Amino acid sequence: MPEVLVLLVEDDDLVVAVLEAAFEEGGYKVALATDRAAAISELENDPHRFHAIVTDIRMPGKLTGWDVAHRARQLVPTIPIVYMSGDSAKDWAANGVPSSIMLSKPFAVDQAVTAVSQLLNQVPPNAV
Amino acid sequence: MPEVLVLLVEDDDLVVAVLEAAFEEGGYKVALATDRAAAISELENDPHRFHAIVTDIRMPGKLTGWDVAHRARQLVPTIPIVYMSGDSAKDWAANGVPSSIMLSKPFAVDQAVTAVSQLLNQVPPNAV
Amino acid sequence: MPEVLVLLVEDDDLVVAVLEAAFEEGGYKVALATDRAAAISELENDPHRFHAIVTDIRMPGKLTGWDVAHRARQLVPTIPIVYMSGDSAKDWAANGVPSSIMLSKPFAVDQAVTAVSQLLNQVPPNAV
Amino acid sequence: MPEVLVLLVEDDDLVVAVLEAAFEEGGYKVALATDRAAAISELENDPHRFHAIVTDIRMPGKLTGWDVAHRARQLVPTIPIVYMSGDSAKDWAANGVPSSIMLSKPFAVDQAVTAVSQLLNQVPPNAV
Amino acid sequence: MPEVLVLLVEDDDLVVAVLEAAFEEGGYKVALATDRAAAISELENDPHRFHAIVTDIRMPGKLTGWDVAHRARQLVPTIPIVYMSGDSAKDWAANGVPSSIMLSKPFAVDQAVTAVSQLLNQVPPNAV
Amino acid sequence: MPEVLVLLVEDDDLVVAVLEAAFEEGGYKVALATDRAAAISELENDPHRFHAIVTDIRMPGKLTGWDVAHRARQLVPTIPIVYMSGDSAKDWAANGVPSSIMLSKPFAVDQAVTAVSQLLNQVPPNAV
Repeated sequence: MPEVLVLLVEDDDLVVAVLEAAFEEGGYKVALATDRAAAISELENDPHRFHAIVTDIRMPGKLTGWDVAHRARQLVPTIPIVYMSGDSAKDWAANGVPSSIMLSKPFAVDQAVTAVSQLLNQVPPNAV
Repeated sequence: MPEVLVLLVEDDDLVVAVLEAAFEEGGYKVALATDRAAAISELENDPHRFHAIVTDIRMPGKLTGWDVAHRARQLVPTIPIVYMSGDSAKDWAANGVPSSIMLSKPFAVDQAVTAVSQLLNQVPPNAV
Repeated sequence: MPEVLVLLVEDDDLVVAVLEAAFEEGGYKVALATDRAAAISELENDPHRFHAIVTDIRMPGKLTGWDVAHRARQLVPTIPIVYMSGDSAKDWAANGVPSSIMLSKPFAVDQAVTAVSQLLNQVPPNAV
Repeated sequence: MPEVLVLLVEDDDLVVAVLEAAFEEGGYKVALATDRAAAISELENDPHRFHAIVTDIRMPGKLTGWDVAHRARQLVPTIPIVYMSGDSAKDWAANGVPSSIMLSKPFAVDQAVTAVSQLLNQVPPNAV
Repeated sequence: MPEVLVLLVEDDDLVVAVLEAAFEEGGYKVALATDRAAAISELENDPHRFHAIVTDIRMPGKLTGWDVAHRARQLVPTIPIVYMSGDSAKDWAANGVPSSIMLSKPFAVDQAVTAVSQLLNQVPPNAV
Repeated sequence: MPEVLVLLVEDDDLVVAVLEAAFEEGGYKVALATDRAAAISELENDPHRFHAIVTDIRMPGKLTGWDVAHRARQLVPTIPIVYMSGDSAKDWAANGVPSSIMLSKPFAVDQAVTAVSQLLNQVPPNAV
């Protein structure tokens, strides 16, 4: 079967390892970006390459996960967005995009995989 | 009964008149702001005075409806947001806040009133 | 057209007057019960007579709005329930029934009518 | 404000009168078709003229409300569909289209207007 | 624990193998039909044997996945339906049944399992 | 990653074994209570220790799963509740709490894990 690619934007090696294993168990492929600027470059180069974005909010550098999602939705308005955060979760109501899911840490890996599957299953086939 | 106040941010007199009449028919009170900077000042002065925001996207001045909603949600994370727009509707997926509704022009007034009622009815009584 | 009957359980005359007018404007008929024990008797006598229940939580007497809804759902599992309350709204998460709506006072009358219409529109035609 | 046009497919004069009044009160315009073949011709001539369809299921002639909705969705995949019926409501699970609403008779007129407003408010601005 | 049986209607051996493994990992049993006429016969012989249908749209023969779902819902109005397709996904808005999910190829297997679990979890216990 | 703890209230050893394995596969930890009174004591001692409750309805003793959920929601209004039952499923409409899920037996284990993940993913980060 052709691949369904999730862009994972996260710099904690342990979280990356656990999420990669769980998404692959669920039949997804994972492309990793440990740096937000790099993530945005990849999105701009080939916006339709990714089927969903799973992003941490805070990482080293100026850009935040809010910025990654904002840029992704400018490029592909229907792309599913899942945010992960601890102390930034409370800012989701002001900074998140519509139809996104905020996973407040701690969360179980199945929450992340189910979040992506739910959001993909909701995208109407006629949306662009 | 005590009032339920909708902050309407819109500068087209005709749209204002039609929406005010419909919201009042539905038992709401309407506070009008024809200028976005003034709207944000009012929100900052007394954030819990308003129960919902209905805002146009583009108006004279630098600020947009996206900015009004963003600021309102920083102050009151659960406040319902309804956007109204013609050619900016396509930007909602990137610029809107979670659990908001975008009314693409043209829309019927009942869509606006129903949007506010639906969103208010969904706020869990324990959310803050 | 045959009537769609809402059982309104409320003892504040002003609230009753405002809600009755709004429901009738929306094409509903309203049966009023100012006493919870009487409301439950009416439900038990003819459970399928009512299409929805709109009930205050606290009133004189031992029974609460939670009890009215509980009994109504034992008799008709699909009947829409809308609660209205001020200081009891926070107890809805523990005391409410599934697929019900809690209107925290103050609310606009259109919220009550939209709540009933939404809930009726969601009942699948095959549910019993 | 520009018009938002609902195509009402119904041959009972009384139901037509009540629904027309309620939709116009809500800011909608109504185009009436008393005959299903005529309804389908109008849809085919100018599919984007209508913003929503409200249709009875059974009427004189060979075509049913299921056929009208099916044809409308072939032409405009996102168009909101509201069915009205008494004894055909039970067939909705097999014959209806996705994201449609079935109003089982008897229903209150506010249910019909709220159904259209809810469905229009859910169409993502990027869907086609 | 007693079995929960998914009827999988698909003729691509690779897709069948991947889906069977994933559904069994999730605690489901899978009954395979590689032919739509046979699928419909099995449904007609014992409609309540299956708890959900997962069907491809196009396969050799005259019948389509739309027909399988339509017949299944005539027999069991609450049965969850998940469609899988590539180029027929765009026809779901016109040809699908209410409360169904369309998986546009490519999809990850977890989307299929989550789709069935979500739909089963939504069926109200009182629906028939 | 820090743990996400599900309180499982169930006395059938086989069901416990299957559910524990599935929740742990999904990244959850499970705390088992085979007795409802003990479950309620644990909730009262440290209400925020658990992230979700999965409870059978009937077990030896006077208390039911409805009581466990009711008490849990008094202590933590946003806690996700999943009920499991065979012949008590029909009472969910009268006895369940809002935003809960009833799994009618038989169910697949993935339904239980997906139910918890869905409910956790829906809790707004600002709710308390």
